[in-house]
Parts: sequence; C-alpha cells; structure tokens
Amino acid sequence: MTEPQSLAEQIQAGEKRPIARGLTWIERDSSKGKELIQALFPNAGRAHIVGITGAPGVGKSTLVNRLALTFRQNRLRVGILAVDPSSPFSGGAILGDRIRMQDSVMDEGVFMRSLATRGHLGGLSRATFGAVTLLDAAGFDIIVIETVGAGQSEVEIMQLAHSTMVVLAPGLGDDIQAIKAGILEIGQIFVVNKADREGADHTVRAIRGMLTLGMKRPDWLPPILKTVAEGGQGIEDVVAALEKHRDHLKQSGRLDRIRQGQTAHLIQLALEDLASGALNAAKESDDWDTLLEGVRSGERDAQAVAREIMRRRMTWD
Amino acid sequence: MTEPQSLAEQIQAGEKRPIARGLTWIERDSSKGKELIQALFPNAGRAHIVGITGAPGVGKSTLVNRLALTFRQNRLRVGILAVDPSSPFSGGAILGDRIRMQDSVMDEGVFMRSLATRGHLGGLSRATFGAVTLLDAAGFDIIVIETVGAGQSEVEIMQLAHSTMVVLAPGLGDDIQAIKAGILEIGQIFVVNKADREGADHTVRAIRGMLTLGMKRPDWLPPILKTVAEGGQGIEDVVAALEKHRDHLKQSGRLDRIRQGQTAHLIQLALEDLASGALNAAKESDDWDTLLEGVRSGERDAQAVAREIMRRRMTWD
Repeated sequence: MTEPQSLAEQIQAGEKRPIARGLTWIERDSSKGKELIQALFPNAGRAHIVGITGAPGVGKSTLVNRLALTFRQNRLRVGILAVDPSSPFSGGAILGDRIRMQDSVMDEGVFMRSLATRGHLGGLSRATFGAVTLLDAAGFDIIVIETVGAGQSEVEIMQLAHSTMVVLAPGLGDDIQAIKAGILEIGQIFVVNKADREGADHTVRAIRGMLTLGMKRPDWLPPILKTVAEGGQGIEDVVAALEKHRDHLKQSGRLDRIRQGQTAHLIQLALEDLASGALNAAKESDDWDTLLEGVRSGERDAQAVAREIMRRRMTWD
Repeated sequence: MTEPQSLAEQIQAGEKRPIARGLTWIERDSSKGKELIQALFPNAGRAHIVGITGAPGVGKSTLVNRLALTFRQNRLRVGILAVDPSSPFSGGAILGDRIRMQDSVMDEGVFMRSLATRGHLGGLSRATFGAVTLLDAAGFDIIVIETVGAGQSEVEIMQLAHSTMVVLAPGLGDDIQAIKAGILEIGQIFVVNKADREGADHTVRAIRGMLTLGMKRPDWLPPILKTVAEGGQGIEDVVAALEKHRDHLKQSGRLDRIRQGQTAHLIQLALEDLASGALNAAKESDDWDTLLEGVRSGERDAQAVAREIMRRRMTWD
C-alpha cells in the first residue's frame, strides 16, 4: 500500500490529524495529494456541499459559526473551508483568530481550515475540489465553502457547491453592486444578515426585485431570509432552506448529475496533469531550445510542437 | 490562405478594424482566435509591455491617459487593454464612458479595449496573452495592461508585462494593505498619484520601508515617483522610469528570456487545447457514461482514463 493509500484509509476513519495532513498535500498540489484525491473520490458523494459567499462585513463568519452550532445540535459533522482568492500571498491568515465561539459542542464534529495557494490561478479551485472530496470521504455530513466577494475565482469555486448561499447586510452601499456583478446568477438562497438594522426590508425588496428581473430558474425560487447571526435569530430558517434545496436537487435528479460532473472534473484534472507533465518533461529534454526557437521564429507551429511533446510523453511512460 | 491568416496580414498592416475583429475572436477563445495568435506570434516581440495596477480611486485611468498622451507626443503608438477579472458578468463596462480626454492626438495612434471573459477562470489571462500578442504584432510600441486591485488573477496577468507599475494614492487606508497582499513583490515602479494631497510623503515612506524589508531584486531598485495625473505633473518622470526599466531588462538579457517564456507559454496553451479537445471528444463518445461510471465507482482510476482519452485523440487526428 502506498503512503497516500494508507493515509486515505485513516482519513476515511475520520481521524483529524490525517485529515489535516491530507489537506496540506492537496494544498501543495503534490503528486501525493493527487493520488490521495484519486483514492478518496469513490468514497465521496454523500455530503451536502454548501457554498457561502458575501462581501466583508456582512457577518458571514458569525453566520457560519451559528450554522455549524445548529448542525452539531442535529448531530451532523461539519467541515468548513475558508477560501480567499484575493490574497494569494497571505495564505492561511483568514482563520487566524477567527473562531471565538468556545462552545464545547464545536470541538467534536467540526473541522475548520483555510485554503490558499501561491501557485497557478486555477490552483485554488483545484485545491478546493480536492479538499471537498477529502472531507466528503472523511464522513462530514455538511461541507461549507466560504468565500469573500464575487470575483471570477469565487464564482468558479462556488460551482463546486450543491447549494450556494449569498449573504448581504443592510446599509452596505455595495450590496446591490455585488448582486449586479454576478452573484445573483449563482445564489440559490439569499440571507440578509444584521436584519435588526435599519434598511433590512429595503435590502430584501431590492434582492427580490432583481431576482424577478433575472429569473432563469423557474423550478427553484430562491428564498430571501432575514437573520441576526450575532443573536442567533433566523438560523433555523436557513438550515430548513438548505435542507429543502438539497431535497429539491435530489428529486430533480440534479444531485446525480452534479456527482457525474465531479467525476468528469476529476478526469479533466488528470488530463491537465498529463499536459503539464508533458511540458515539464519537454523542458528537461535536450532539444527544448530548438523547439522554442522553431516556434519563436514561426518555422514550426505551437500546435504541432504540443502534439510531438505529448506523443513523447505517452510513449515514454 | 485561411480566414485567420488573411486577418493576420491586415492586422500586421496596422488596420484598426481587423484589430478589433481579431480581439473579439481572441476574447471568445475561438479556434479562429487560436489560429490567429499562432500566425501573429512570430511577428510579435517588439513592443514594451507595461502592466499598471492599483486600487479603484487612485486615479489609474487618468494616469494612463496622461501617459498615452506623452507617448503620442513622442510619436509612439499605444495599445491599452483594460482587464477586469472582478466582474466576470459585466464584460466591457470598464471603458464605457471612460475616455473624456478629447485631444486630437489621441485619435490616431491609440487603441483601447476592455477585456473580460465569461468562461473558465484561466480564460482572462489567456485572452490577455492573445490580445498583447495581437497588438504587439500590429506594431504598437507600447502596450499597457491595466488591472484593478491585486487578486490572484491580476498577479497572473501582470506576469505578462515587462514592466509592472503599482499606483497608489495618499489617504486611502487600504494602500498599505494592498502592498501587503502581494503587490510589493510584482511592482518594478511605484507611483504615488494625487501627490498634492496630504499624506503623500507618508505613503512614499511607507512604500520605501516595505521595499527595504522585502527586497529580493538587488539589480533593480524600484523607483517611487510622485504624480498629479489630473494636472499632468510628474508624468515625464514615469515615462523616463519605464524607459530605464526597459533598458535594464535588455542589458541584463531578461527581455530575451521573457520572449522565450512567452514562446513556452504559447506551447503550453496548445497543450491545454489538446487536453480540452481530448476531453470534449471523449464526452461525445459512446462509452463516456461507462468511463464516468468506472471512475465514479473507483473501478478505474482517472489517470488511466485520461491517458486512454488522450491516446484516442492522438490516433484519431
């Protein structure tokens, strides 16, 4: 048994230290990490993957903590991944001193981790896919992917989720801006947090108006819920909405299609590895400079060179 | 001659309409666009590619306009690409009503375009690479890539530039934050714009302090320049710094290495196309569901399936 295979077994037993170790492999995009995802993937597919996004200051973290608490009371195990694509160089900071909630119930079945990658742009969504697969195979019932804002990377990461929740707060001028920027198209549940503040109903109406305008999903009407996460109000409604959305996905057959999509994604990642492996091997080869010069001068075309490089790689192995 | 080849000839003659059309092909990541980049690449490599980044509100656009004006006075042709990775769904808005400068000198040798892609996360840096290649081959002397902020996508896009300029303004609280987030590591020229405002010297000192701490580039000391772009002050110094940096790259042999890096990047793109082409062909094949089910159940591993898919693609062509 290889090292990743044996780690996979410990992870599937739900042991926290192997989980942390596996996530580090995945974050580094190492070959061990890839083998690990491979080994775990067939055992994943049971968890409810929930994406939560919203601008800084809307109280996202407090809401996630409250949700985790409620899930724990229902005896569900919760994995939380905090993803921050906006800080490629400050990896790991997001959860630094975040969890101030000291409920003992949180200790047991909750696993938290921040994800960041220094490398390639696609690296973060790759790492998130791997981390979700790992936590899923480790037996977590709910996996929360938390991101800040609505950039292109966040949208791609949110596509890994079954249910995507958009959190807003009244009085933040850029709320509606954020909706305009594309969040609307990916949100299946909307939460107006800090709903005890002035303007909460206005924010709800603004979201509703925009949803009515942009509606393309007639089989699921996104609910708009009000919460005060700080005080715990409205959390049960959010949990109920998540369950309802999960049921909706199941009944419409979409949950199965999502799992098929994940499988296709795994194959795609393997193809990308094959391509980057071929390129790296070519860069090590004696005639790399000649190949480069051929393309640079226009004597050879890059497509033909790419094929040759791939052909070498396939016969070499 | 294929359609892309004939368009490539018109582009190399510097005609504006073919340029606009080619950029649209590239933005859509179409096969025509790929063939076009291929055809243009050997004729690119002469332009000075300048990356300009900074938070919203620092006066980046005004500065770019001023720079363009000065370049034009020196009879240089300027291409400007405004890239906005934060708004995947609002493509094309950034330049909407931006250019208010009506100098006649701007009409002739300046080409402006905003870039946005709806698709894959890597799509934007791909499109930017293609757009830079196109403008370069079209004979523009200076190509400015303008991005907002310092997200992971911006950092990747900035790697396409020869010289990267970071623009800040005094009194914006998040300046130093932005520097911390990684901008420091990519900036070769720092500009404190709106330098007539209070706190400009403080901002200069803060940048200098951080540069001293993080210095890893002993062969190039990034200058920190003050400008008031609105009034045109300090622009010549920025132009001079850009020229100096370009000379530095040339003399150190780095300009050649960058061109080699671009060639390798072109081959990498061709390899990625090969991989995605293989996946798409597999998805169309009769046994796709069987392949998926094999990976999903853990009966086959994704790597082996990826190889099989690639092998089919290579023999099929």
